[in-house]
Amino acid sequence: MCQLLGMNCNTPTDVTFSFAGFAQRGGRTDHHSDGWGIAFFEGLGLRHFVDHQPACESPVADLIRRYPIKSRNVIAHIRKATQGEIALQNCHPFVRELWGRYWVFAHNGDLQDFHPRLHANFRPVGSTDSERAFCWLMQEMWKSHAGVPSVKELTLTLRELVPSIAKHGRFNFLLSNGDALWAHCSTNLYYTERKHPFAHAQLTDDDLSIDFAQHTTPQDKVAVVVTAPLTVNEQWTQFQPGELKVFVDGSAA
Amino acid sequence: MCQLLGMNCNTPTDVTFSFAGFAQRGGRTDHHSDGWGIAFFEGLGLRHFVDHQPACESPVADLIRRYPIKSRNVIAHIRKATQGEIALQNCHPFVRELWGRYWVFAHNGDLQDFHPRLHANFRPVGSTDSERAFCWLMQEMWKSHAGVPSVKELTLTLRELVPSIAKHGRFNFLLSNGDALWAHCSTNLYYTERKHPFAHAQLTDDDLSIDFAQHTTPQDKVAVVVTAPLTVNEQWTQFQPGELKVFVDGSAA
Repeated sequence: MCQLLGMNCNTPTDVTFSFAGFAQRGGRTDHHSDGWGIAFFEGLGLRHFVDHQPACESPVADLIRRYPIKSRNVIAHIRKATQGEIALQNCHPFVRELWGRYWVFAHNGDLQDFHPRLHANFRPVGSTDSERAFCWLMQEMWKSHAGVPSVKELTLTLRELVPSIAKHGRFNFLLSNGDALWAHCSTNLYYTERKHPFAHAQLTDDDLSIDFAQHTTPQDKVAVVVTAPLTVNEQWTQFQPGELKVFVDGSAA
Repeated sequence: MCQLLGMNCNTPTDVTFSFAGFAQRGGRTDHHSDGWGIAFFEGLGLRHFVDHQPACESPVADLIRRYPIKSRNVIAHIRKATQGEIALQNCHPFVRELWGRYWVFAHNGDLQDFHPRLHANFRPVGSTDSERAFCWLMQEMWKSHAGVPSVKELTLTLRELVPSIAKHGRFNFLLSNGDALWAHCSTNLYYTERKHPFAHAQLTDDDLSIDFAQHTTPQDKVAVVVTAPLTVNEQWTQFQPGELKVFVDGSAA
């Protein structure tokens, strides 16, 4: 099993505070030490970092903690291998291009007997159930739309597609194309919306706190989605099993 | 115009020495300061770093210089924008997946009136002539083979495809799928093969030298391909205009 972290904002925001706590679970405060990864949209472009070292020890993760990359959509993942060896090609998030846009996907869970027919142009490079699920989702999205669909249209398509994967096991996932962040829960997923008036927050996994009021403007909105709450004094809302939510401009749409 | 750096080896090797000199051209010893990028194959997996900051100032480039990532195939690029704005989505190298493998491409040059029909599933995300050329190459490779071709077969296919792009202008490029490194020259490209007995090398662009004999075994073979020679005391062979070479296990095949 793995852990997920997603961020969706109305203005480019750095994820260093949330990532600092999250990365501790990659081998220090929790046992998710079989690799990690993070992807940041920057306009249409994407920064994608993966590493098979534990996030708490990785020099690349150290860079992310120190270098504030500002993004409106971020997806991060720390891995505890269930299917697929410990190798770079099995580290989430995965990236594909479709309709001239990058799509980023990370999964927490375990799918049993999931070997879909992949007859289009999305094939897994690694050997995880997660990348198979992503490739199948991309294939079916490609068959359902002629070009980049609106957020609303794609949400409807995902609601139709997801159950046929979710019936194979635990399928908590995050997906983004830079416009929005889609989050599906089958077992564990929480979110919080940070907005004016911003408050003080204290990490669960590290001795670190922040006064968001000092780093934001009153217009800023930031939604954070995570497998288990990252802070002790913010309100985290638990997803219902089977729930698919989409976050746009820092709010649940 | 831009600059290219490629490395192909028979054993995973770090590129820190060559990259240290190359990165200096990203704003310090030369004017290629409109972004940079590097991709490292690691087995089937890929580490891909891009940044729109000059390579000589980028914290990510600093990480690459200090963190020895070992790889058998590396492609790096520093950008001087000709077509396409300075933005992350226009930074090379570009990555796509085909037949369950990652493909990496970087281009140095300038293509005039090159707007090929992209009717398959490879579309540019950014606005460069280079990414259009990559998408067209991927499309035509996909049409020419049912699965991953052998290095020899793909070399034949590329020899057929490349002239129809190269007639539009300067088309120096590097391409890799992790098995081999393909390099095409239309104006400027050089390579050197480092092998036993290994010698001392002194960078052209930085006050840095290395005794490769201390960092290698007699079996190691490393080919380096670059827009302009990186060292003052190694033998660099210039490509002929129109020449396509493929490097496998650290040697020109």
